[in-house]
Amino acid sequence: MIQSVGYAANHSFTGLKRHEFEREDPRPNEVLIDILYCGVCHSDIHQVKNDWGNTVYPCMPGHEIVGRVAQVGSDVSKHQVGDVVGVGCMIDSCRTCEPCRTGDENYCEGPNSWLATYNGPMVPSKKSPDGENHYGRDNTFGGYSINIVVPEDFVLKVPANLPVEKVAPILCAGVTTYSPMKHWGLKAGQKVGIVGFGGLGDMAAKLAKAMGAEVVLFTETEEKLSEAARLGVQAVYSKDKDQMESQANTCDFILSTIPEPTDLEPFIPVLKRDASLVIVGALDKLKPFNNMEMAMHRKSVGGSLIGSIRETQEVLDFCAEHGITPDVEMIGMDDINDAHKRVNDREVRFRYVIDMASLKTEEA
Amino acid sequence: MIQSVGYAANHSFTGLKRHEFEREDPRPNEVLIDILYCGVCHSDIHQVKNDWGNTVYPCMPGHEIVGRVAQVGSDVSKHQVGDVVGVGCMIDSCRTCEPCRTGDENYCEGPNSWLATYNGPMVPSKKSPDGENHYGRDNTFGGYSINIVVPEDFVLKVPANLPVEKVAPILCAGVTTYSPMKHWGLKAGQKVGIVGFGGLGDMAAKLAKAMGAEVVLFTETEEKLSEAARLGVQAVYSKDKDQMESQANTCDFILSTIPEPTDLEPFIPVLKRDASLVIVGALDKLKPFNNMEMAMHRKSVGGSLIGSIRETQEVLDFCAEHGITPDVEMIGMDDINDAHKRVNDREVRFRYVIDMASLKTEEA
Repeated sequence: MIQSVGYAANHSFTGLKRHEFEREDPRPNEVLIDILYCGVCHSDIHQVKNDWGNTVYPCMPGHEIVGRVAQVGSDVSKHQVGDVVGVGCMIDSCRTCEPCRTGDENYCEGPNSWLATYNGPMVPSKKSPDGENHYGRDNTFGGYSINIVVPEDFVLKVPANLPVEKVAPILCAGVTTYSPMKHWGLKAGQKVGIVGFGGLGDMAAKLAKAMGAEVVLFTETEEKLSEAARLGVQAVYSKDKDQMESQANTCDFILSTIPEPTDLEPFIPVLKRDASLVIVGALDKLKPFNNMEMAMHRKSVGGSLIGSIRETQEVLDFCAEHGITPDVEMIGMDDINDAHKRVNDREVRFRYVIDMASLKTEEA
Repeated sequence: MIQSVGYAANHSFTGLKRHEFEREDPRPNEVLIDILYCGVCHSDIHQVKNDWGNTVYPCMPGHEIVGRVAQVGSDVSKHQVGDVVGVGCMIDSCRTCEPCRTGDENYCEGPNSWLATYNGPMVPSKKSPDGENHYGRDNTFGGYSINIVVPEDFVLKVPANLPVEKVAPILCAGVTTYSPMKHWGLKAGQKVGIVGFGGLGDMAAKLAKAMGAEVVLFTETEEKLSEAARLGVQAVYSKDKDQMESQANTCDFILSTIPEPTDLEPFIPVLKRDASLVIVGALDKLKPFNNMEMAMHRKSVGGSLIGSIRETQEVLDFCAEHGITPDVEMIGMDDINDAHKRVNDREVRFRYVIDMASLKTEEA
């Protein structure tokens, strides 16, 4: 067993606290990673607060992990001790269902779906068809910790020219926005609308721009309008009806990154005919919207969930190629409860990253 | 001017009454049609009751029209006096916007959109960008009447081997379900779910079956389950949770034909990964549904509106080729108020068709 320590929540209503525990030794196909940095994703907050009703406690979040390989199992061939690597939202999948075989592990249809980096399998035993948990792990502890053990196939290579302290958010915020833009076929010269300008919106805008798309950001936070200018993209204050109307029928694709149910109704007219609005932020009941506008121009609303391992590597390489890095603010591990609050209050610009050097093995 | 008579509503709260009026003589590109039959569509009832807030009174519904050409304008080349022809939901479009030029007139983006067979342009002058009505017609009177004048390009040819008294519903119910099944690429061997088993559901099931798809009908009306067996398709009582669960993850496409907002939530799990549920029945605020299931399997919900003129001719020819006819019940013009009530009460199996011979030029 490997000694570890991290920050975990024991209940939905308490904050995160120091939590000592042990990780299993790497199996032959697994890699032990010493964590250098971990991003703070809005879903960490949802999960800690049990907003989706599926949280297993203690809950140790963190699925935007960058670290250094410390040890490899006997069968590992893809990674070597000392490599700088990343881990995103998944650490395993069933590997036999059709989506897994075609490289869409994030849509794994195995009995437990994919194994999340924290909080265990997406379909826990009590909800799985045979009542089993085929991963043999009821809970998994994420990247708010000093180390992690992950099967090599779910470990990403971090390109050498990316600044290691800024890479983490690419592993969730990056791939979550990259995957639907690729899947829905966004092309250079097309216009994409990004709803919400937080950690995901920041990455979505940068990625779309690098893909050659024209970008318009929609935000409810007026102070963020000037930040959009800094990215060189158009920005619209979505509470202003006239500004919204000026965007009617202009977007080939819209990505909604807001992490809670949003009123989609103002954004559907912004889509061109036959175009889609895809929601990646909210995993909740949507606010009701009218089918009249959808039907009149054959529009669609869809959902997308993170991205595959192949896409995660692709987006890392794409960022390296185009010099894209997330806007991050570095925090220490013991700032985490304050950081969660500030994310909720929309005060972060745009992603907190925990410097894991701040977490010592022995309590001070 | 041409003497005409039909049934129209003067208010949202009164029934339809005999209404004498005059139609303009056919212009050079227009055709005068003596109406033989007209289908009763659920949207006729919505429009009469002003459910969409856009009804112009007097409101004379009817957009499933079959008749015989009585007179042709000097430039008409596609139709001859004596031809049996059809008219669907549109009688004109702007003819210059991109959708019109590519044969998608039902998505016309002209200043007034398309000209509806009844109730005038889809975008009336007060809502059009320039405050004009470029069709020069504020209201149009539909097929609940003895004749109609229509530009030849919006007049369909009725194949000789289709029984003329049953053709009418193909012109709206038929093309409204045919168009999205073609657009979303339904293929032989795939499975399609049809939600709602009324006039549209009847046509959708027959068309999908003829396309080689496996069909499952979802109905809330238990008595209709045996009717589905008659069509040779599977049927599910959608209020039965076990029956619904047995359909999970089986459909490549779902068409919701229910003419009012439906709870879509039970049907999203029925879709396979990456599949779409398309709503053709309801033009209202949708009931809220959860994005969790959509995102987990990258599903979409879309809208579709009737079909193009090309598709309307295609579906008529397809029905002729495959021997498909709607299930109709013939009524007289003076049965119309009772018929509207029965449609609302889900008592029709499956489409009323008005025999226009029942409407005399002079009142009895």
